[in-house]
This record gives sequence, C-alpha cells and structure tokens, in this order.
Amino acid sequence: MERLEEEGLDGLFVGPSGDLLYLVGLDLFQDERCKGLMVSRKGCFGLVPLLYRQEMGRHMEGVPLFVWDDRDGFAGAFGEGCRSLGLEGEVIGINCGMRAVDLIDAQGVLKARYVNGAKVLDPMRRVKSPEELALMRKASGLADLVMDKVYRFLRPGLSERRVKEFILKSFDELGTVPSFDPIVAFGANASMPHYGGGDAVGEEGDCAVLDFGCRVGGYCSDMTRTFFLGGVPDESAEVYRVVLESQLKGIGAVRPLVAAQEVDRAARDVIARAGYGEHFLNRLGHGIGLEVHEGPYIVEGNDTPLEVGNVFSVEPGIYIPGKLGVRIEDLVAVGEAGAEVLNSFPKELMTTP
Amino acid sequence: MERLEEEGLDGLFVGPSGDLLYLVGLDLFQDERCKGLMVSRKGCFGLVPLLYRQEMGRHMEGVPLFVWDDRDGFAGAFGEGCRSLGLEGEVIGINCGMRAVDLIDAQGVLKARYVNGAKVLDPMRRVKSPEELALMRKASGLADLVMDKVYRFLRPGLSERRVKEFILKSFDELGTVPSFDPIVAFGANASMPHYGGGDAVGEEGDCAVLDFGCRVGGYCSDMTRTFFLGGVPDESAEVYRVVLESQLKGIGAVRPLVAAQEVDRAARDVIARAGYGEHFLNRLGHGIGLEVHEGPYIVEGNDTPLEVGNVFSVEPGIYIPGKLGVRIEDLVAVGEAGAEVLNSFPKELMTTP
Repeated sequence: MERLEEEGLDGLFVGPSGDLLYLVGLDLFQDERCKGLMVSRKGCFGLVPLLYRQEMGRHMEGVPLFVWDDRDGFAGAFGEGCRSLGLEGEVIGINCGMRAVDLIDAQGVLKARYVNGAKVLDPMRRVKSPEELALMRKASGLADLVMDKVYRFLRPGLSERRVKEFILKSFDELGTVPSFDPIVAFGANASMPHYGGGDAVGEEGDCAVLDFGCRVGGYCSDMTRTFFLGGVPDESAEVYRVVLESQLKGIGAVRPLVAAQEVDRAARDVIARAGYGEHFLNRLGHGIGLEVHEGPYIVEGNDTPLEVGNVFSVEPGIYIPGKLGVRIEDLVAVGEAGAEVLNSFPKELMTTP
Repeated sequence: MERLEEEGLDGLFVGPSGDLLYLVGLDLFQDERCKGLMVSRKGCFGLVPLLYRQEMGRHMEGVPLFVWDDRDGFAGAFGEGCRSLGLEGEVIGINCGMRAVDLIDAQGVLKARYVNGAKVLDPMRRVKSPEELALMRKASGLADLVMDKVYRFLRPGLSERRVKEFILKSFDELGTVPSFDPIVAFGANASMPHYGGGDAVGEEGDCAVLDFGCRVGGYCSDMTRTFFLGGVPDESAEVYRVVLESQLKGIGAVRPLVAAQEVDRAARDVIARAGYGEHFLNRLGHGIGLEVHEGPYIVEGNDTPLEVGNVFSVEPGIYIPGKLGVRIEDLVAVGEAGAEVLNSFPKELMTTP
C-alpha cells in the first residue's frame, strides 16, 4: 500500500506472476480465466474463478473473495470488487499478469484510469534478502553442476534435442526443475538468441550455445556457456575472445550506485570497438528472482542505480546470421565491494573431444 | 482479412498464441518483449524484437517487419507499423497473446478503438480438417497408452510427484511432449480441479485424479481418469457413478447444430438431480487443437451451434472440499451422426491393487 501511494495509484491488480507469488505465495498459471489480487489503499480483494476457490482462498486468508463462474465470466465480479473498494473513476495499475483482452473487458464494466503497473513491486522484489540470495546461490550451483555434466557429454554428431533431453534429465536427477525451457543451439542456429530448439546435429567446429537454469525454493538460476564441437575455427575463437572480454568488463562495472545502463555500456563498448556492435542484439542482462526475467533490466535508458542485493544476468553475445552465436552468461549479485558472481563454471574457451 | 470484415475490425493484432501458430507457424513464448503479427484489411506487419528477427522473419516472408530494440521498447515500432497501415483512429482487435501492460503502452502511442479480438479466428480454427483430426486422434491414442501404463503403476503409498514423473517419462519414451503440466491429485487434493501438484502420498481408498495429454504435430490431447487406490468407499463409488452418467449424457447430446450450452446442460442436469450441483465447479468442456483451451467452449451462455469437425473435451466433475474429486474427461469430435470419442481407455470404476 505504501508503494501505491508512492506511485500515485489507488489500486494495483496483480495477476498470476512473480508479483503474486511474492505477495501471497500463489503460483498460478495465466490462462483464459482472469484471476488475481487487487490491492488498494483501503484494502484488497481476490478475483477468483470458482474452480480455484480452495487454493486461492488458502493463500488469501481474510481477504474478501469475488468468485466468478464459467457461465458468467470474470468482468462482473471484477467490477463489483472494485466498487467495494471505491475504485470507480480512480487510477488502477495493472501488473504483468493480466491479458490485454481481459483489460478490455474490465474497462467495459468499470470506468477508471488504467495504467502500466508492471514495475510497481520492483523496488520490493529487486533487493534480495540473505535468504533469497542463499537460494539463488544454490540454484546457480546446481546449474554449474549440470553444465559440467553436459560439457563432458557433448561431442559432434549429437542432436540438439538429445542434448536438451540430457539437460532435463540431469536437473531431474538433482531433484530440481528447469526455470525455463533450456536452449540448445548448434552452429548457425545459435545466431538466434532465443532459438526454440530442433533436431540439428552438431558438426565439427560448430559452436554449441547452452542456456539453462533451475529453481530452488522458487528462485531461479540462468546461465549460458558456448562450447565448440571437436575444434574451433579461428574466427569463432576471436568472437569468443571478444564476448568473454565484454562479459568480464560488464561484471567489473558492477558496484552499488552505478546506473544499470553503465554496466550495459561497459560491456557493449568492448563488442562495438571490436567491430561486432550490430551483432549484439539484446540488452546486457535482466534481473532474476522468482521470475527468470524481472527488474532491474541492464539496458541503455535504465538509469536506476544498482543496490546491494540486486541479482541480474550479465550476458553479452555476438550473433552472426547463418554462421554462429556466442553468449556467455553468469548471474551476479551486487555486493558492497562489487559483483559476486553466482556461477563458478569456467569461462575460458573450451572445445569438446 | 475476411474475418476482420465480418467482425467490423480494421486490424487484428495477433501475439504469441495458437492463433499465431495457426496463421504463420510461429510457436513463440509470450514474455516481456511484445511481438506478433498485425493483420489489417490493407496488409500486415510484423512487430519484432531485434533478437527474434531471424525466426520471425522466416515465418513472415514478404511481410514488412517493424523491428525494435531493447533500448527503445516496442511501442514506437507498434505505432509506426499501425500508421503505415492507416490504423490510427480505427478499430483494432487484440487477440489473447498480448499483455494488458503492453496494450496500455500501445494506447499511449496510437489512438484507436481497441476491442477484444480473442475469438476472431475461432471460426477458422474450431472446425478441424481431416489432417488435423488425424493428428488429434493420434495424440489421444498416445494419452490412452500412458493412462494404461500409469494405471498399472499406481498403488497406495506412492506420492503425487512420483506418479507425475512417471507420466512425463512415459510421454518421453513415446517420443512426445506433454500438452500441459500433468495433474496428479490424490484424495482431498482432487477437490481442486486445477491442483498444482505436491508430495501427498496416496492412501487406501483415496481417489486419484490423473489429467494429462500430449502433442502430435502441434495438436493436443487432454484426458482425465479417476481411479481409486486399493479400494473404493461407498460414497466415492456413488459419486463416480453420477459423474460417469453425466459424462455419457453429455457425449450423447453432441450432434451438429445443437447449441454448445445444450451439451453442458445435458451433463449438468444429471449431477444436479443427484444433489451434487454445487460441487460441479466448471464448464463442461473446452475446445482443443493447437491450444489446450480454445473455442468452442461448452458452457451455459454459448448458443453457437456445434459443427462437424469441432473437437472439445467433455469433463464433468464433482469436487467435495476436504474429501475427494472425481472427473472423467474424453475428447470428442463432432461427426455427422454425433460424437466420435477420441479416447478409448475404459471408464468403468477401476481400483488399483
């Protein structure tokens, strides 16, 4: 409620998301049944599809529930709930866990000023407590272990799919679950940073980008290494050298009070000076915690100063269409003296047998 | 474009969703980077985050791409793209693949009348072609096989988690992937229709609700059976009998030209007459295809007549808090003569050893 006041909001609707998990421990999937928690300066209500009444009620004890039925849809219950808190005509923030089509239907039943509230809870979530940090260290340690296993498994002739299955199995054996669908991309496929995966078979000299993470106590890890299958062509080795230098420069720039964008600039500058600037396609990093992507984003334009306890990825990359992609990613936590790197798997250029 | 005209729309924005997969074969994940395809009566454009340029471009050959960079955000490119198609001030439908926060930002750069376009493509997608039906039969057949394996594996003393792992492994061995996170719920947990899973250990006399499906060629299956562990208490057997009768009545009501809600009524009536009406918490069923939940929804208030080629679930349930849940779910395809049931695993009451 303090955050609402700071942001000039009368209410904030929190749909299924890391925000909702953070606030009330509810880990829900966003689907066609609109649901969540409305927080206002006067109180709260839960917007609850009938078939979620038990589990949502359990996590919102003492909160009035506005339960809706598949027959009627959610909009009536949403309007009623908002009116019970005097939100008609007021300023309502919406977090990232609501669909645009549901907002349109909500606007149809309740006049209000709806504003983007995706970042309202960021200042609460982006500084991790010692307990949260401990879970994230553990999650990163497990990812390191799996990276080690995969490196020893990798060789030319394996398919991307086979390697992905190996990663999933390895996390399962460690008693954890992936934090996102692992990325395994060989050769030219690796030039697509979010390559969706396929059946390509790795050949001698191909790069192999492996990007994955897992969860411990709900908290995520996320790391990337790029290996070379059976050997490394000279140009690829040069690209790797530039990405690694960029990543180390980025990590070196991390300190409390430094603006997020300064870290992006430090890393980007290395790649630009080497002549690969147009091939570094994305921001340097993203915050991480209960969600794989959350604040603070390490991107040009974000001048928010880093704080002790922020945790984010540092993941420069060079992506050359039709040829290769190289990305090196660690998670770092901001400490008083600079970055604590949560991953320990080595980063020098490594080829497989 | 014909559908836009029928719906009185000037444009339709199609974000990551079954709609986008259906239109251009793009299977994308919805995240904080807004992306998709805008279709208008005059042409199309792709809204493309820089790091997705290769894969999105590949699926949208000949379509102008408005590419945006993490530095700048999507809204500028969205506005520019819309203006290039003359959409300023016009009526723009939004499909289910856009976040509310992104719609708010889009409204900030482009004045237009934004309307709920979630169902615009339904009439195209909800009648399955013979090829689509063949894939869905196959996906249902694989789910049947896994149900058979799980039934033979089940016994008192196993945890929900262990059974879920068994299901995932079984799909993997069949070379397929789950269409959604399988539901395994024992005893009182089964009274939550979308129970998120846990470590509960099944005891003698508990119900065991198993709800899962897989994908073949992108098309989904989805089925549920409820078994009893080691034996069945009399009241549970009676609940089962009512749910089964309801399910058979629902299936029996399926014919071309019958309103979707009539099928819901036929099944619901059985449960209401048996005195369990308040414990049937959800609509009778949902359409299914490239998405697990799509049109036509089998729910009171939907008077759309069924058509040959519709495929949907028939899944009545009785959910008694603190006690048990029973659900029986098959997929059916509407044929000239009535329902073709895609699942063949038996439905009589079955107990485990």
